[in-house]
Amino acid sequence: MTTDTPASVKMEAIVSLAKRRGFIFPSSEIYGGFGSTWDYGPVGVELKRNVKDAWWRSMVRQRDDIVGLDAAILMSPSVWETSGHVASFSDPLVDCLSCKQRFREDELQQDACPTCGSSEGFTSARQFNLMFKTHVGPVEDEGALAYLRPETAQGIFVNFGNVLTATRRRLPFGIAQQGKAFRNEITPGNFIFRTREFEQMEIEFFVHPDTAAEWYTRWIEIREQWYVDLGLRAENLRRRVHPQEELSHYSAGTTDLEYRFPQGWAELEGIANRTDFDLKAHAEASGQRLSYFDQESGQHVVPYVIEPSAGADRALLAFLVDAYTVEPDENGNDRVVLKFHPRLAPYKVGVLPLSRKQPLVEMARNVWSRVRSHWATQYDDSQSIGRRYRRQDELGTPCCVTVDFDSLDDHAVTIRDRDDQAQERVRVEDLVDALRMRLEC
Amino acid sequence: MTTDTPASVKMEAIVSLAKRRGFIFPSSEIYGGFGSTWDYGPVGVELKRNVKDAWWRSMVRQRDDIVGLDAAILMSPSVWETSGHVASFSDPLVDCLSCKQRFREDELQQDACPTCGSSEGFTSARQFNLMFKTHVGPVEDEGALAYLRPETAQGIFVNFGNVLTATRRRLPFGIAQQGKAFRNEITPGNFIFRTREFEQMEIEFFVHPDTAAEWYTRWIEIREQWYVDLGLRAENLRRRVHPQEELSHYSAGTTDLEYRFPQGWAELEGIANRTDFDLKAHAEASGQRLSYFDQESGQHVVPYVIEPSAGADRALLAFLVDAYTVEPDENGNDRVVLKFHPRLAPYKVGVLPLSRKQPLVEMARNVWSRVRSHWATQYDDSQSIGRRYRRQDELGTPCCVTVDFDSLDDHAVTIRDRDDQAQERVRVEDLVDALRMRLEC
Repeated sequence: MTTDTPASVKMEAIVSLAKRRGFIFPSSEIYGGFGSTWDYGPVGVELKRNVKDAWWRSMVRQRDDIVGLDAAILMSPSVWETSGHVASFSDPLVDCLSCKQRFREDELQQDACPTCGSSEGFTSARQFNLMFKTHVGPVEDEGALAYLRPETAQGIFVNFGNVLTATRRRLPFGIAQQGKAFRNEITPGNFIFRTREFEQMEIEFFVHPDTAAEWYTRWIEIREQWYVDLGLRAENLRRRVHPQEELSHYSAGTTDLEYRFPQGWAELEGIANRTDFDLKAHAEASGQRLSYFDQESGQHVVPYVIEPSAGADRALLAFLVDAYTVEPDENGNDRVVLKFHPRLAPYKVGVLPLSRKQPLVEMARNVWSRVRSHWATQYDDSQSIGRRYRRQDELGTPCCVTVDFDSLDDHAVTIRDRDDQAQERVRVEDLVDALRMRLEC
Repeated sequence: MTTDTPASVKMEAIVSLAKRRGFIFPSSEIYGGFGSTWDYGPVGVELKRNVKDAWWRSMVRQRDDIVGLDAAILMSPSVWETSGHVASFSDPLVDCLSCKQRFREDELQQDACPTCGSSEGFTSARQFNLMFKTHVGPVEDEGALAYLRPETAQGIFVNFGNVLTATRRRLPFGIAQQGKAFRNEITPGNFIFRTREFEQMEIEFFVHPDTAAEWYTRWIEIREQWYVDLGLRAENLRRRVHPQEELSHYSAGTTDLEYRFPQGWAELEGIANRTDFDLKAHAEASGQRLSYFDQESGQHVVPYVIEPSAGADRALLAFLVDAYTVEPDENGNDRVVLKFHPRLAPYKVGVLPLSRKQPLVEMARNVWSRVRSHWATQYDDSQSIGRRYRRQDELGTPCCVTVDFDSLDDHAVTIRDRDDQAQERVRVEDLVDALRMRLEC
């Protein structure tokens, strides 16, 4: 395992580190877990917030052509009838004739049952809808049926008219949303890569139909660059253009950004040209006008939609895998370090006093209070300084500030760099500026 | 409607403003809506992010005794059996014998049916569980039953051991979480005050049993102060101590912070002393040790828990209601202004060029780019300057920066204050500092 071969990084090592350091725990673990669900621990929740905030900042706040939205998870079932999810968002399932175990037909690679080994064969395939169902209100009947949304996108389409009226936008403009979605996957797995409950980060970018091809290309570039800017190594990213026969019913073109995950190359994000399929379908089903009045041409236009659709959990996993590095330390032992981009790092600064005695502690606390109003920090005073550096390395903390006995005399501290382990002596009054130089790049 | 009588503010006026300006839309509106669910629009999503970020910042990042968590919505059903929710998280429902309509027995105030007027009477009450049910995996049977979590708290309790091990915390310490919860309420209503899908902001603060009473009092104060610090007027807040007979089965004491909503005084947040009920119950049911080893006494302690439980949507509604002000303008017409605390305001600065012509536009764009790297902003160049001020007032934008024809000569702009409408001329190079003074208070 070295910096250059993340494809060989063992998922097991990452899962183990993630649990030990408080990134990600198996959900409901005290009850034996609950089918491929995971909980973000104290460190993971900060990492996930940073991933989501970086996306929101780049895609919404720093652009003048995208606004945000946060639609409910429980929506009218009509939405999913119109979108096609009720009819066709399904996997083909078969049962083993011998042991009755259920499988996805398209994932069976042999005639014998993977569970019991019988070669009696399987039932013919039945379509199994991936939407979770529930019932809303005091009566459990079909009239009260509702679905947990399988994607956030439809919440954007059905709000198109309200957003347009409230914001008086002109084409091209986008609506961005982050939120949970749910799919009753038969084969979740690979840690947080595929889970039944996951968080999406989706943009529906509405454009004049004539410019759809151009914007489709541009969005592939923008989204690819976003990952690279946050430190993902370009050699672990590639594009995969969907062949015609693989395209969804709504799509005139889809390109996946793939990442080299431990299990192999797999989809990190999809960018699709959804055409005017969704707006037209909802307009027809609801009887509402979902179009844009183009003042120049004096005509109503149904925009085309370019959709960059990312997953917060999957992006987090890619950043985690890419950051995971094992290097020899000065004694030839393994040093495990998460080389996160400073913007993503759960904690930016660790403050480490060399002793738990006064007056050193008072000075360390003062240093800490200077730093913590600017950044997420950790104060760590337990065990040897070497072990504390290792711990901060495993948390991916870019800078450690060590307060030592000389600090009391020279009123200076040492900044230790996570990646090259170089140390720099800095006067306390210059500390915030020195850290800012390193962290806000 | 004046600044001093928010209790008389009409909810209808707020709902209407919320839709018109893009704060909150009725969910699935093009399909006729979907039973008291709401979607946050482009402005509302920023406001909600600010409410949640303010809470996370104060409760997690700026404290050294609280860490975060983000547990899954779908958890093992064992969690809800142990917590008592399967057995007793229910409302008593009755059916009208004549029209078969269903009601909450404890909300019926008369013998005659509120729907059909019949006085035939009602069925005897049956308990209706408020948890939404669904099925996980490819087979819909009891074995695959799962619930949408009705509270985030239990996700914290079942992760107590993992958090303790990963972070090596000492008592007292807290675990904080934000996330969606779901309750199949029979009578949702009052806009976003009571909805079936809502977002909680909960802390479970673990303390030595001897100090629980003290921490209970302290948390009531901390949480009350949080609202006041973010601009909620103290006269619209009050405490209500739950009488003994009203306490939940797990509680040794609960105090509600109530806000004067348009519909009357109602719960904004609850602070409960949950004792060791949850940790003990989960330890017993799971067979896992959920306790804390106290090094001083050399004993294992099951901590008591103080729980400040807030709702992000309900807090947002309180901030919205409290900010909503109607004042006479200089012509004696109504001026509607949302006087949000700057930290909560969806946009901090509006940049308003007095004309759409060059070279004014170029200068305005330059001014905008200086400002937008620091704060969420709006650039608005449509309609008269008076109408644009009114629009920013209705969005609650604290500062408007007007670029006028004099700006080209004196390289200065005007800052207009949302609340007192006073104007100040500022040189462009001093603009960011001047805005910082006003916004980062």
